[in-house]
Amino acid sequence: MTNPIDTLVHELAKLPGIGERTAMRLAIHVLRQPPEFGHRLAHSLNETVGKVHFCEECCNITTERLCHICKSERDEATLCVVEDIADLQAIEKTHCFRGKYHVLHGALSPVDGIGPDELKILELLTRIKASSAIKEIVIATNPSVTGDATALYLAKIIAPYNKIITRLASGIPVGSHIEFIDRNTLSRAMASRVSFQ
Amino acid sequence: MTNPIDTLVHELAKLPGIGERTAMRLAIHVLRQPPEFGHRLAHSLNETVGKVHFCEECCNITTERLCHICKSERDEATLCVVEDIADLQAIEKTHCFRGKYHVLHGALSPVDGIGPDELKILELLTRIKASSAIKEIVIATNPSVTGDATALYLAKIIAPYNKIITRLASGIPVGSHIEFIDRNTLSRAMASRVSFQ
Repeated sequence: MTNPIDTLVHELAKLPGIGERTAMRLAIHVLRQPPEFGHRLAHSLNETVGKVHFCEECCNITTERLCHICKSERDEATLCVVEDIADLQAIEKTHCFRGKYHVLHGALSPVDGIGPDELKILELLTRIKASSAIKEIVIATNPSVTGDATALYLAKIIAPYNKIITRLASGIPVGSHIEFIDRNTLSRAMASRVSFQ
Repeated sequence: MTNPIDTLVHELAKLPGIGERTAMRLAIHVLRQPPEFGHRLAHSLNETVGKVHFCEECCNITTERLCHICKSERDEATLCVVEDIADLQAIEKTHCFRGKYHVLHGALSPVDGIGPDELKILELLTRIKASSAIKEIVIATNPSVTGDATALYLAKIIAPYNKIITRLASGIPVGSHIEFIDRNTLSRAMASRVSFQ
């Protein structure tokens, strides 16, 4: 591994979803660009890693004390609890939620050794206790086994605080065909059917 | 774009095949690792870009005067001409070729403005002229329109040097089913059929 090009491929291949072949393709692309291209990426990496920590309020990642969402003016009454930063990003892109977030950084999964202490649940409870402005808590965990378990657990421990607790609707995705929807999704869509308005 | 995390996502999204969503996933992964992870990748980038140039002999990329293949002991009699470094890597992985390479860095494509001068064809001719040790030239361009055109062009201009000129066999991939093979591949496999031994 003394060849610097091999080292670069090796480092790139450590990224998730990047195999050795893709890493080689990425490395060749970077090396074909003007040197500034690679240096800018390197600079950006150096600038970010080590300076990133969790937002003191919502546990999103940030390089400051509070993340850009917590710093901006948002509706304090609604708190959306997500498993991951990527989920937060996805909801933000819809531009349909103006409340604040709380990032759990995972979902309960006893088989993987992830219990309540491994997630940012204590931080969530502290936040709910501290703020009387919070009226509704939207549990936006994934509609998966671990996401559902986490939602149930959260609903139970949040219950004593007298907040409205909601969940994202689960059902048939917009634009899809009933014919091709898996059985679980279809039965949940049927069970959660809403009145026609 | 003042947020360093956004900047990192932006820089990662410039890589080929990496969209904004994947860039975000990669950034989150890097930021979740110990800082050394990101710094190592940054270091590797800085160490490689700007120091990489073409091997003086075969036009492979290297940080030294000659690439590791040209420096190692290889069969001087066979020269394999490839379009790209990735093709060279793929052939190297088969461990079935012990000769040397020449990387063209592309294929002839007049519509994209890529003529002979844009490729390392002059370097190839200079090499063939200079070395009497070269007996056979394997043209290993892709079996595509541009690859075929490049192969035909090369065969024509190499002809005067009295070398054996060969091409990689093109046909049905090993392990595939004739039923599912596209018409072009199948007709080429039929046209290039070999005697049963």
